[in-house]
Amino acid sequence: MHDDDFKQMFDCLNLEQLDVYLFRGYTPNPGRFRVFGGQVLAQSMNAASRTMSEDRRVHSMHAYFLRPGDASNPIIFEVDPIRDGRGFSTRRVVARQSGKAIFSASISYQVPEDGLEHQVNMPAAPSPEDTGSDEQRRIKDAERGGIPPFMPIEYRPTFDDKDREKKPDQQIFGVWMRPRGQLGDNPFDHQCLLAYMSDNYLMSTALRHHGKRWNDTELQAASLDHALWFYGDFRADDWLYYDMSSPRSFGGRGINFGRIYTRDGRLIAASAQEGLMRWTGEL
Amino acid sequence: MHDDDFKQMFDCLNLEQLDVYLFRGYTPNPGRFRVFGGQVLAQSMNAASRTMSEDRRVHSMHAYFLRPGDASNPIIFEVDPIRDGRGFSTRRVVARQSGKAIFSASISYQVPEDGLEHQVNMPAAPSPEDTGSDEQRRIKDAERGGIPPFMPIEYRPTFDDKDREKKPDQQIFGVWMRPRGQLGDNPFDHQCLLAYMSDNYLMSTALRHHGKRWNDTELQAASLDHALWFYGDFRADDWLYYDMSSPRSFGGRGINFGRIYTRDGRLIAASAQEGLMRWTGEL
Repeated sequence: MHDDDFKQMFDCLNLEQLDVYLFRGYTPNPGRFRVFGGQVLAQSMNAASRTMSEDRRVHSMHAYFLRPGDASNPIIFEVDPIRDGRGFSTRRVVARQSGKAIFSASISYQVPEDGLEHQVNMPAAPSPEDTGSDEQRRIKDAERGGIPPFMPIEYRPTFDDKDREKKPDQQIFGVWMRPRGQLGDNPFDHQCLLAYMSDNYLMSTALRHHGKRWNDTELQAASLDHALWFYGDFRADDWLYYDMSSPRSFGGRGINFGRIYTRDGRLIAASAQEGLMRWTGEL
Repeated sequence: MHDDDFKQMFDCLNLEQLDVYLFRGYTPNPGRFRVFGGQVLAQSMNAASRTMSEDRRVHSMHAYFLRPGDASNPIIFEVDPIRDGRGFSTRRVVARQSGKAIFSASISYQVPEDGLEHQVNMPAAPSPEDTGSDEQRRIKDAERGGIPPFMPIEYRPTFDDKDREKKPDQQIFGVWMRPRGQLGDNPFDHQCLLAYMSDNYLMSTALRHHGKRWNDTELQAASLDHALWFYGDFRADDWLYYDMSSPRSFGGRGINFGRIYTRDGRLIAASAQEGLMRWTGEL
């Protein structure tokens, strides 16, 4: 049913180049009102990576969502090559629609090198084969929002609604994720796709502490920022496990942290995202 | 001995305004070669906050350290007012020396509002009165580096060298911190000072997993980025507890996360920082 969604989405991540530092992108599912944040993260990374020499990899990105993106209009991405060094390079990207900044990011690249290594182990979780898909819930969410379901990625959460309201220091919000399609061997594509996927579920972690969901009617929820750190090459088209926690919410905002593991337990990325969680109902 | 250090440092955080969006700052301890990262974080926040209406507070910042800052020369801070909204405003700041960007940051502001609240509790730690200062070690470090000691902040670590090489998921790297002077009631000053203090110790957390210190001769260590999220007003001139952990190091980099608590256990800030930890000795 959604086999074509991945192809449509992935095509849109490969931006049209207007000039050396200027790109244009589209939204694959214009039935939505707003552009999915992960799409803009991935598109900005595509823009930056195409101004980068091939000996480097993204090692981190920091981004702000400034205004909702309009799904029915193109997005212009402007890259500022603020620094090129021997071991590291940095790009700043601003995404605009109708002349207004909707998003800004900084993306840093490193020539891969060896070094000291440690990691937190992956928490115990059922295998993706033993975990149910949340496809039905996502279709229902889309229908409730009056938009066509668009599901380029398959998500299999290892928790269900009964698990809500856990203690803040428990890392129990986890989801297996895998795109509905294969990628080639370009490492930038795998990094780009992970940026896309890392924007789902993360923000909801803080909400789960209060038994809320991002589309509860008494709640205004939105991603405010996003950070991502990469540790080594990986394939984004095999199952990855996204382990999430939220230490704090206050003042209409909640902070969420994620750790992303390959199936064999290698920690290949860490993420951070603050979400607006404006409660419009009774407190 | 160091009573004047705080005054000198804090004076330098209040930048000279050259134009509406242009500022100039100095380094209080030019005996150092390099500018301390926390100083540039705090100065960039001062620049951004002085272009902001008083009804807002910093709620987060994301920054990259691009080049070492030269302590003997002024730093120019340019502010880009990329967005002003009803509830949120964002500023981008670039710090330059000799025409080259040494640092870039995005800082986001929010009109304070009420909302849902949860937090991870402060870990058990001895009180600041029961914790020894690390002043002697810091003086020794400065002398070894051939620079005059400059200690505007008092740090009292709740661990010592014997605690090194703990498990990555333990949050056991903690330090009490307090400036050697008092602030007025301007909330921007308290946020600014916390940004300054939050850049100490954090990067070393990943190194501790390997029994290393930032100034080990076989190691090249440097802050690569810094993120900070604030949760509510607080006083930065009373004891704060900085609780730190590091889930991952790989490829010459390590990621560190911090949580900052008031003495009575309120979680008022979270931080993230990736450090370069380039091992130049035998691996």
